[in-house]
Amino acid sequence: MRGTVLYGPRDVRFEERPDPKIVEPTDAILRIAATCVCGSDLWPYRGIAPITEPQTMGHEYVGIVEEVGSAVRQIKPGQFVVGSFFTSDNTCPHCQFGYHTSCVQREFISSAQAPLLRVPLADGTLAPTPAMPADDLIPSLLAASDVLGTGWFAADAANVKPGATVAVVGDGAVGLLGVLSAKQMGAGRIIAMSRHQTRQQLAWEFGATDIVTERGEEGVARIKELTNGIGADSVLECVGTRESLWQAIRAARPGGHVGFVGVFHEVQLPMEEYFYSHVHLHGGPAPVRRYLPELIDLIWNRKINPGQVFDLTLPLDQVAEGYRAMDERRAIKALLRP
Amino acid sequence: MRGTVLYGPRDVRFEERPDPKIVEPTDAILRIAATCVCGSDLWPYRGIAPITEPQTMGHEYVGIVEEVGSAVRQIKPGQFVVGSFFTSDNTCPHCQFGYHTSCVQREFISSAQAPLLRVPLADGTLAPTPAMPADDLIPSLLAASDVLGTGWFAADAANVKPGATVAVVGDGAVGLLGVLSAKQMGAGRIIAMSRHQTRQQLAWEFGATDIVTERGEEGVARIKELTNGIGADSVLECVGTRESLWQAIRAARPGGHVGFVGVFHEVQLPMEEYFYSHVHLHGGPAPVRRYLPELIDLIWNRKINPGQVFDLTLPLDQVAEGYRAMDERRAIKALLRP
Repeated sequence: MRGTVLYGPRDVRFEERPDPKIVEPTDAILRIAATCVCGSDLWPYRGIAPITEPQTMGHEYVGIVEEVGSAVRQIKPGQFVVGSFFTSDNTCPHCQFGYHTSCVQREFISSAQAPLLRVPLADGTLAPTPAMPADDLIPSLLAASDVLGTGWFAADAANVKPGATVAVVGDGAVGLLGVLSAKQMGAGRIIAMSRHQTRQQLAWEFGATDIVTERGEEGVARIKELTNGIGADSVLECVGTRESLWQAIRAARPGGHVGFVGVFHEVQLPMEEYFYSHVHLHGGPAPVRRYLPELIDLIWNRKINPGQVFDLTLPLDQVAEGYRAMDERRAIKALLRP
Repeated sequence: MRGTVLYGPRDVRFEERPDPKIVEPTDAILRIAATCVCGSDLWPYRGIAPITEPQTMGHEYVGIVEEVGSAVRQIKPGQFVVGSFFTSDNTCPHCQFGYHTSCVQREFISSAQAPLLRVPLADGTLAPTPAMPADDLIPSLLAASDVLGTGWFAADAANVKPGATVAVVGDGAVGLLGVLSAKQMGAGRIIAMSRHQTRQQLAWEFGATDIVTERGEEGVARIKELTNGIGADSVLECVGTRESLWQAIRAARPGGHVGFVGVFHEVQLPMEEYFYSHVHLHGGPAPVRRYLPELIDLIWNRKINPGQVFDLTLPLDQVAEGYRAMDERRAIKALLRP
């Protein structure tokens, strides 16, 4: 088969790779129905997270089970499945507490931008759909694999409750799906921070009640203004920079919650200033597997349409153009079909 | 009157000061029954938090109301009251959410180590006892004013629930009362981290089920060992250094909670490492006023005896010896009686 390999900054190649095989008896091999480029893929693509050797890419995927190892019990060949970007056994104490991305057996999936994928710990990592999905559901099911699951965790970690006032920092796919998640969780008011018209449009569609175009201190001041000087109950931090983190903490009211899901790179939080904010912090790599059954159900019953974040669809062999379009912000998120 | 003034490192003087007077109509004047030296007073005392001019000291207090301003409605002259170290109006949105130490009108109380004290926003800051207390209850009521309220908040912020496994970092008065608080909240197991025999003894009395004497990575490893490799559900961070914060975060399980109450000085939290911990963070200056009615009730009915943290009682005019004894760790906490 041919698969995606990153050789260095802005050097993505779709090239010959060995077909994946069952290695452990708990593995499954999937035939990928759809995969995509993640905002976090842009870190090594841009050279910000340096790489020392060529690396296979891709951690978001849906597909049909082609083969399973001898110890796989629940997942069956022929099933359509959605998987998470970290494997999980779904049985260790951390999984039982719902933190599948801290599973004692976790491994990062990193070669999903290919037609075939080996998934370790198949029973604990993959969630099947009720039947073979209609083709138009595939983008939404793919979104559940990472960006929706991550936006959902951001909202959950930010303690979004019915009636809550929510602010969302970041208008990438995760932030936009954070808006959708907050809406599903019953938020009374959802303030999306965005200055890009196409993203604002999607935020409105997903349930935003206000758009704030200002950033940094001005953005915080605007959120305070919109909340009678109090601040938001819940803030979703969907970027991962020092600026976005502070924007989130300052936009929250004392006793409010910040849920963070953007991967931080060399960001330090000054604890003395944070101490006096009285803001709760929670986040990290989203335990997508925890939410998959619920998210698949919402998508299957067409209650949510998170697949709208894919505004570019390409054949998998044009994966390099998918990276370029996202890097240049011509696309929110690029879906790839083998 | 004579009151306590800090002139510089290790230079505490008990000297002539003007008697406090009603300034605002919402003020009260208290005749102090007992006050004490706080662990946080040692920061400027040791010169770690530098001071530029002589400053009055003391923010923990119980006493009898001597006089109230014309706008004070609930607090009456003759009542015995417990107050918090930050004033609060108890009516602003932050107070209504329970974050009295983020009150929009908050002021820091900083001259309580004296026989008379002006307390602004008396109705929102002070909580009366049901009647004049027996003398032996006074140390416990004084503890409620800060160290008990702060240990209680640490446990609450760390989400201590019935049956939870709790670890407490710090064996000062706040940490020890964090043990007591976790016990009251129904913790199933309470691991106190302490290497001082008198403090360990008090931890056992307050409800500790295990004592860990190791610190840093070894301390974390010991807690992991005691929890089958999982980590604690709730960790109370009652110190405020970089080391103690990391010890707390690493001792918690993924999805667990760290409640922090030690004031940080120039501590930075590396967010990338924290990101992967999956640990909830919450804390800050304890909103003691929120808890005062409940804490007074527990003390009044002799269900808890937090006053045991005072292992040194001095006449107020020997306040300098109180600072010395705590600085040299000869005393856990020094109570001062005018």
